[in-house]
Amino acid sequence: MPEVIAYAIDSPTGRYEKTTITRREPGPTEVYFEIAYAGICHSDIHTARAEWGEPIYPLVAGHEIAGVVTKVGSEVTKFKVGDRVGVGCFVDSCGECEMCQDGEEQFCTAPKGQGTVGTYNAIGRNGEPTAGGYSQGITVEQDYVMSVPDEISLEHAAPLMCAGITTYSPLKHWGAGPGKRVAVIGMGGLGHVAVQFAAKMGADVTVFGRTLAKRDDGLELGATDYVSTEDRDAMKRVRRSFDIVLSTISDGVELDTLVGLTKPHGVVVNLGLPSDGTATVSLGRLINGNRAVAGSNIGGIRETQEMLDFCADYDVRPIIEVIPANQINEAYDNVVASKVRYRYVIDASTLAD
Amino acid sequence: MPEVIAYAIDSPTGRYEKTTITRREPGPTEVYFEIAYAGICHSDIHTARAEWGEPIYPLVAGHEIAGVVTKVGSEVTKFKVGDRVGVGCFVDSCGECEMCQDGEEQFCTAPKGQGTVGTYNAIGRNGEPTAGGYSQGITVEQDYVMSVPDEISLEHAAPLMCAGITTYSPLKHWGAGPGKRVAVIGMGGLGHVAVQFAAKMGADVTVFGRTLAKRDDGLELGATDYVSTEDRDAMKRVRRSFDIVLSTISDGVELDTLVGLTKPHGVVVNLGLPSDGTATVSLGRLINGNRAVAGSNIGGIRETQEMLDFCADYDVRPIIEVIPANQINEAYDNVVASKVRYRYVIDASTLAD
Repeated sequence: MPEVIAYAIDSPTGRYEKTTITRREPGPTEVYFEIAYAGICHSDIHTARAEWGEPIYPLVAGHEIAGVVTKVGSEVTKFKVGDRVGVGCFVDSCGECEMCQDGEEQFCTAPKGQGTVGTYNAIGRNGEPTAGGYSQGITVEQDYVMSVPDEISLEHAAPLMCAGITTYSPLKHWGAGPGKRVAVIGMGGLGHVAVQFAAKMGADVTVFGRTLAKRDDGLELGATDYVSTEDRDAMKRVRRSFDIVLSTISDGVELDTLVGLTKPHGVVVNLGLPSDGTATVSLGRLINGNRAVAGSNIGGIRETQEMLDFCADYDVRPIIEVIPANQINEAYDNVVASKVRYRYVIDASTLAD
Repeated sequence: MPEVIAYAIDSPTGRYEKTTITRREPGPTEVYFEIAYAGICHSDIHTARAEWGEPIYPLVAGHEIAGVVTKVGSEVTKFKVGDRVGVGCFVDSCGECEMCQDGEEQFCTAPKGQGTVGTYNAIGRNGEPTAGGYSQGITVEQDYVMSVPDEISLEHAAPLMCAGITTYSPLKHWGAGPGKRVAVIGMGGLGHVAVQFAAKMGADVTVFGRTLAKRDDGLELGATDYVSTEDRDAMKRVRRSFDIVLSTISDGVELDTLVGLTKPHGVVVNLGLPSDGTATVSLGRLINGNRAVAGSNIGGIRETQEMLDFCADYDVRPIIEVIPANQINEAYDNVVASKVRYRYVIDASTLAD
């Protein structure tokens, strides 16, 4: 079975080092694909540094994966050798519960150990820990693999597998479109894609950043306005203006302030988790305006494919910096310091260097 | 201009006493109707007792009003003398803003003084304080008057003007219907109507009460299950079960507990305001399940009429206790003590007694 080179980390304060891992031969309904690129998501960092609990070390992170199929199991019908494919945040689920049947496999309700299997830092159906995209190849059930449209390069496809679906799904669900005003809070890895989706869906988009440093980028990506959250007058001017407030940040702006940005019937959708996990909300403001505060977490396989097709059709692309594998540690520090514009993507051809 | 008998209160600790108020002659587009019945809503009590800020005293409360038209202005097209009509929580709004145009007059965005005018404890367009349904008659713009279907008696129609629309609107908006599971939290003035709406919309309904004292009523009104919120095992059994959790209570169950009752993609809709107005919510639980916490506040005129028609078509009726006007003070105490089953309705013919 294929031994592949990977980058792994073995403690919260450790560094990623080159290593070798074993991938299984594809079973009858599985595909094996050579990874071309893997995005670096902030979740990778939270996990690797044990900020979300102690992970399974050694950890090979990466759930924004794109590559080319090189082996298929005997019963695989969806892919063939040479197909350009991608994998996101999960690689398996029960397939039978109400959520899986609805195409919402990320919320599979099967008991722990039989439910959604994370692409890394999880235990797979075979009892072995899963390992993610910072590696040369991966074996995955065909039902959890997306097809990358020809129009999208593999390096651009990779970040869409998480950052793309995470922002597309809530915008779609909550009705971003013509006549709607959308606020995107945070102009980072998620935010810079969210702006594009919302604008291409036909909504009028305003970006909110701490400073105006990324204003030009925001406007170029489709926003019509850009507001500093520290500019009190500007924040006052845009109160009660938005149908959808999509918050891609985890700290820095009070939830109630975001609710105050919504029109009656508006919604604040949180994608980022604050450090203590909770927030205080004024129920009066929700009641007197039929407002809602919601959360959203990635999306199912069918919707992820739909998102990729949307990106192909409407020319939505992440802005990326391709890096060699030996710069993962430095890249992590830059992500934490908000120095990346806007997504690091590891070139998997450098893993062996 | 008609002098009418009313019951008014003049301080937070005062009692309702019989008095006389003046109603205006109906203008060209206004109707005057003789009030037959007026429901007692918990909001009346909060307002009268200054629990929501100092009201305008003397206060004539009542925003669940039903009666019969006896005068119409020269340009009135919607009603004629003898029509059975009702009025709810508001009697005017700007009519021109986005919300009014959308039929959501309760969220009129016109500046204070020109926006939504409460049926009582507000300043009307003529600069005078408004007075509500604890009176013999009222003059209202025709656009803020509902038609009571023949199938519904006026005493049953009255509570629908607030308790009815307050529960109908969120159930409709959030998709109560076949295949959906709805939890109604609280079996009181709102809850006992909500159960009927949700069941008649086709949903499977569970009622949550502090005790099981009202279980039989809940099941008779259409619920298939009734759970005590103090029964830990039962509460555990129904976790992650509901598409819609409609909370009609203001205190007693933590918001996070209610969120825990929802399935992925579920929503908790709050109708009641806790004493400090805020609640803490676990954003992780919202995110990991695409859940939402929302509020809802009455409904617009068009939807209130739709609700009345639904009640006529599907036989939804509040359970009421009709009382004479001289029992208002006692009734208030009983409402606060949760002793009413389920809505007091004042017989306006007793105002003069």
